[in-house]
Amino acid sequence: MTALPPGSTIGILGSGQLGRMLALAAARLGLRTHIYGTDIDDPAMQVAHAHTISDWSDLRALARFGSECDVITYEWESIPVAAVEAAAKGRTVAPNIRALQTAQDRLIEKTFLRDTGLRTADFAAVDSEQGLRDALQSMGGRGVLKTRRGGYDGKGQAMIRSDDDLTAAWERLGGVPLILESLIEFSREVSVVAARGADGQVAAYPLTENEHRHHILHSSHAPASGDDGSAGEAARTILDALDYVGVMGVEFFDTPDGLLVNEIAPRVHNSGHWTQDAGCTDQFEQHIRAVAGWPLGSAAPKRAVVMTNLIGDDVDDWDTLARGPNTHLHLYGKADIRPGRKMGHVNRVG
Amino acid sequence: MTALPPGSTIGILGSGQLGRMLALAAARLGLRTHIYGTDIDDPAMQVAHAHTISDWSDLRALARFGSECDVITYEWESIPVAAVEAAAKGRTVAPNIRALQTAQDRLIEKTFLRDTGLRTADFAAVDSEQGLRDALQSMGGRGVLKTRRGGYDGKGQAMIRSDDDLTAAWERLGGVPLILESLIEFSREVSVVAARGADGQVAAYPLTENEHRHHILHSSHAPASGDDGSAGEAARTILDALDYVGVMGVEFFDTPDGLLVNEIAPRVHNSGHWTQDAGCTDQFEQHIRAVAGWPLGSAAPKRAVVMTNLIGDDVDDWDTLARGPNTHLHLYGKADIRPGRKMGHVNRVG
Repeated sequence: MTALPPGSTIGILGSGQLGRMLALAAARLGLRTHIYGTDIDDPAMQVAHAHTISDWSDLRALARFGSECDVITYEWESIPVAAVEAAAKGRTVAPNIRALQTAQDRLIEKTFLRDTGLRTADFAAVDSEQGLRDALQSMGGRGVLKTRRGGYDGKGQAMIRSDDDLTAAWERLGGVPLILESLIEFSREVSVVAARGADGQVAAYPLTENEHRHHILHSSHAPASGDDGSAGEAARTILDALDYVGVMGVEFFDTPDGLLVNEIAPRVHNSGHWTQDAGCTDQFEQHIRAVAGWPLGSAAPKRAVVMTNLIGDDVDDWDTLARGPNTHLHLYGKADIRPGRKMGHVNRVG
Repeated sequence: MTALPPGSTIGILGSGQLGRMLALAAARLGLRTHIYGTDIDDPAMQVAHAHTISDWSDLRALARFGSECDVITYEWESIPVAAVEAAAKGRTVAPNIRALQTAQDRLIEKTFLRDTGLRTADFAAVDSEQGLRDALQSMGGRGVLKTRRGGYDGKGQAMIRSDDDLTAAWERLGGVPLILESLIEFSREVSVVAARGADGQVAAYPLTENEHRHHILHSSHAPASGDDGSAGEAARTILDALDYVGVMGVEFFDTPDGLLVNEIAPRVHNSGHWTQDAGCTDQFEQHIRAVAGWPLGSAAPKRAVVMTNLIGDDVDDWDTLARGPNTHLHLYGKADIRPGRKMGHVNRVG
């Protein structure tokens, strides 16, 4: 695609904090954003040039939204494919719909990853309690049962280590398509955020080490130790295989046998927020550059950064956080503080 | 004043690129902005949470705008004081109206600066051709005649080195209040951008060296060589004397006898744009922090930066500029390219 000149409009499906930070990055480059979302008070609505408020089944509103944009992207991988297609109508969608479909279904995702030659946990589709029992046996009696679609931050998952667990897991999750994944013994969780431009150029940020608490990302350290380049290469393999344009987050388990891919997110990623204050092109600008057909910027940080999410009432400390030396505060404009809700983050530098 | 919590609304009078970059910085901190300006297509309108479009004499619109804001600031020193007062109506205006009045009139400004003990060019009020002739004689027959109010980027000024110049200058500028300033022999133009918080804390960025072309800022180098701290101290003197809250730009002539203050700008300043990519709190966030009653951030850059303005069709090179190593591109969302118009800037780091 030809690069979109300044003044062009990036259509963003989804209106959370990722859309907000994408809109801010686009504005820095002189590009406009039009946000599609369901609530006028959502974070991205406050900073976009234009917005459309409706739901994901309103195909007319989606088509009208799309007709006012020069390219369509999304900040959230659970947007219905039909909604994206209604908005697109011949316009470029970046990342493409195949990437979205792949990330929306854990079975398709894992199968795709295995087909590219990358290592993942063992996995099996599960459609019945007996099927679950059989699959579990093949994995040595232990595994994680997950819904194939939906689910985030640990929702839609059940750990199975016993027969009682199996029954409980089936009762809780059964009835929708499921996947059983083998339990992985890992020393740490790491990720790579990488971008691929419209010209096929790939730029991967360094390895990032992530700490989760209560299944929610708590903090990311970058660059992480022990980066042998294999995570970046895995990301490149995935991006190329999908003919992907935009930023992707790839999560890995670090095991004694090397990295296993856990999952991919076809969007800017919480574990890449540290790039905002690392002195390189940040992931939000990088995504905008990619989807607008611009050259990618540098993904080489000048400084080490620790990103910490502000979850729920953590954000009440904004006044103290704002005084922190070498601390950059980022808040999302969310009015209601709720437990587990991501309200902002801080990047601590150096 | 008490610090305004996240979610509060900063009212910004003026809708150009400075307002735009203030709005983007406010959004990063979870603060909302409401922009007052005369044209919906102006740079700041594209990124603000709310806007009011009217002119500077519409006191009802200004009052309504003000009633929806928690604090009022401005991005432009030529806004009529009556407009600011109409918007304020008991609300805090930061920087205060005295600072605005001081900066709006070169005679008041120079008199104020002299009264604080700082050195400036010699100056005299001029209200008649004979008065101009007398003042010029007292300055050795040479000087710069300027309108007391209005004028920017060299507009509203005339250099006088001869009797013919005098007649021409009077014919061009006479009829409004004028000031004659002595000609200064200087080796370079430098500036300091500094902030003062609501608690009186002052944070000055390092000395910046500026190059003008055709009376318009072309580039700024920071930190500049030969910073003995006197510029920062001068800025502190000015900020304290005005009981100022917010960011100010102070321009100096560097002469064999030390720094002379040229002028002050009661707002974020073009010569401070380099702070956006220097690894410290940038001037836009610093201004928002100050006017919102937040603690100031660090004004100590981690890296040297050269800022270059993109004037007129310079911006047509955006594609090449976006590829520049260690180059951060900032565009203002202006649709019409005109000669002399500031369309964006680049910060080149390290």
